[in-house]
Amino acid sequence: MSADAPQRGFVAQEFENRLSRLQDGMRNRNIDLAFFTTEAEFRYFTGFFTQFWQSPTRPWFLLAPQSGKPVAVIPEIGAECMRRAGVEDIRAWDSPAADDRGIELLCETIVELAGEGASIGLLKGRETALRMPLADFEALKQRLSSLQFKDITGLVLQLRMVKSEAEIEKIAHACQPAGRAFDRAPDAIHTGMSEREAFQAFKILCLEEGVDDVSYLVGGAGAGGYRDIISPPSERKLAAGDVLMFDTGCVWDGYFCDFDRNFAIGEVAQAVQDAHARLWEATEAGLEATRPGACCSDLFHAMAALLPGASSGGVGRMGHGLGMQLTEFPSITPFDRTELQPGMVMTLEPSIDIGGGRMLVHEENLVVRDDGPLLLTWRTPQRMPVIG
Amino acid sequence: MSADAPQRGFVAQEFENRLSRLQDGMRNRNIDLAFFTTEAEFRYFTGFFTQFWQSPTRPWFLLAPQSGKPVAVIPEIGAECMRRAGVEDIRAWDSPAADDRGIELLCETIVELAGEGASIGLLKGRETALRMPLADFEALKQRLSSLQFKDITGLVLQLRMVKSEAEIEKIAHACQPAGRAFDRAPDAIHTGMSEREAFQAFKILCLEEGVDDVSYLVGGAGAGGYRDIISPPSERKLAAGDVLMFDTGCVWDGYFCDFDRNFAIGEVAQAVQDAHARLWEATEAGLEATRPGACCSDLFHAMAALLPGASSGGVGRMGHGLGMQLTEFPSITPFDRTELQPGMVMTLEPSIDIGGGRMLVHEENLVVRDDGPLLLTWRTPQRMPVIG
Repeated sequence: MSADAPQRGFVAQEFENRLSRLQDGMRNRNIDLAFFTTEAEFRYFTGFFTQFWQSPTRPWFLLAPQSGKPVAVIPEIGAECMRRAGVEDIRAWDSPAADDRGIELLCETIVELAGEGASIGLLKGRETALRMPLADFEALKQRLSSLQFKDITGLVLQLRMVKSEAEIEKIAHACQPAGRAFDRAPDAIHTGMSEREAFQAFKILCLEEGVDDVSYLVGGAGAGGYRDIISPPSERKLAAGDVLMFDTGCVWDGYFCDFDRNFAIGEVAQAVQDAHARLWEATEAGLEATRPGACCSDLFHAMAALLPGASSGGVGRMGHGLGMQLTEFPSITPFDRTELQPGMVMTLEPSIDIGGGRMLVHEENLVVRDDGPLLLTWRTPQRMPVIG
Repeated sequence: MSADAPQRGFVAQEFENRLSRLQDGMRNRNIDLAFFTTEAEFRYFTGFFTQFWQSPTRPWFLLAPQSGKPVAVIPEIGAECMRRAGVEDIRAWDSPAADDRGIELLCETIVELAGEGASIGLLKGRETALRMPLADFEALKQRLSSLQFKDITGLVLQLRMVKSEAEIEKIAHACQPAGRAFDRAPDAIHTGMSEREAFQAFKILCLEEGVDDVSYLVGGAGAGGYRDIISPPSERKLAAGDVLMFDTGCVWDGYFCDFDRNFAIGEVAQAVQDAHARLWEATEAGLEATRPGACCSDLFHAMAALLPGASSGGVGRMGHGLGMQLTEFPSITPFDRTELQPGMVMTLEPSIDIGGGRMLVHEENLVVRDDGPLLLTWRTPQRMPVIG
């Protein structure tokens, strides 16, 4: 691990700022209490950080009043970890319990914090999910029938979309070991390995170079391109003429990088190298279009102009926000009019149809600065590196 | 990777069996169409397997009629991967789209498959979540107001709880490389390393030994025990007298192992070794109580009898089901009357309070066979291995 790694975690002020921005938005929207059930929002507003969310058994509830500190209504197993995150008001219940999955305690706490007839803000819109049993949510609405439930997805997406300097440092840092792993890949991977063996070798490189987790690694290989970009590796052996692509979401201190690299296995057809060069140029055009005030759709059109036939494989966008999740709001699409702001961290991810049901994609990561984009990845070479 | 690895994936018959058991249950409950939004159910009923679920942008919908094959209503980006999984009827939409997140297509497809007034089964109960925007679900209910939505959580948990031989093979296989990594840990970890460095070294061991992913690794170290069991590693350096615990969910072909090991850093107090021995004995008692027809609560009481003061740190249970998810239904609690059946894969996970806010946990994995438990992990030694 490199010596120049940023500080882990965040200073308390970071969470105070996030909460204060949330509460400003709540006041503007007349929301008395914000209600969250999802990992990203728990971590964003409190620093509560655990892989234990992978266990589906227990729901977790976070309440943020319009003023004052957040209150966690959580299973007892998380209380110590939550205390360490700095949350002072923790209401814990024994879980699993025979019948009640925390709803009793949650209802009491909502009434205490917000009172009858209050407006409760929750996430109901794009890119959200309800991470609690739907029956419990319905029961809660019935028990607290005087409450108004309002969607605050827009507010929360807007908050999370602009990263603090401390967040940017973490994403930037996650890109470094992943980038070094990509640079070392030609030494660790060779013709005749299966896709799966190549994936395993690459995961070990990423860990050796200092990522915390290789949480996401998809890609594939095929003669002159690949058929989709979300599949796990197959047992197929890498052969001359293949293009091998790794798309990795490596995590450092809870923040993702998300970029990919293509490799030529031996010699690939000139048309394939040309297609890769066009993706490279499209990414340049995307970078040139990136500045505060430009819209996501401007970036899309700048890239698409260099890619006749444009997006293939149903990717549906040419990049997206990036941070605590592998992909975040907004999306680089023809219709997303979200304006770029300094501090937004984005991927540029153009794709190209190369015929025969095959495609190439390419992805880099950047942060929007006052004067334009700052790359967090180092640019892939215009010509794909060759693996022997 | 070992030469005796089972076959990857499943034969088509596996999915036919799962669907047929679901459809039997649907007929018994007068459910016309089952509706799923979650990764585990997609994969269980179709074999659709991708890490892309980590991107929150797109919802995915699976419909299973009371007879006939399942229909996937999914974003175009997943269509190729879904086709490869063997699903024939795929209705794909371009995603992200400006407004419609697939609800138009989903509504049409539901009406086509089930008709007006049909009963739609969905997951609303324990251990479930709604992985789609709540606003979209509410819109769907409003548009299709003649439909009845019924909870089929019990049915699906019961189906998934009993594993096929092919599933058991995968879980058993996931335990092997993780077990070898635990055996090698004393050679790779030493006093003076930070917890984080120890975690990284252990993850690399797991990958070298042949797991696909170290999807879950929590634990910690502390003088004579640890304070909670869900935290990520700290920068604290391992010191003589510590107990170091790794609890790992390693994945092989989409199936988890979930077990832990405790290590003594140098010499630990005799009382701590004694506490570990009591956990070991409690696990033995749990194994002895494991047989078809016994209840989860029987296993709890068998283990708790040897652990005065019983569960600490709010763990709330002494084991759980295991499979495609790190933890699955049922739970080993005093109140869970679920009867063990042959083919159920479970963890036994007793915990003990050792005073001063510190605890020890221990976990093994087993499959229930006609004549009792078959261990999938090899038993930890009664005395904690020492790391120098």
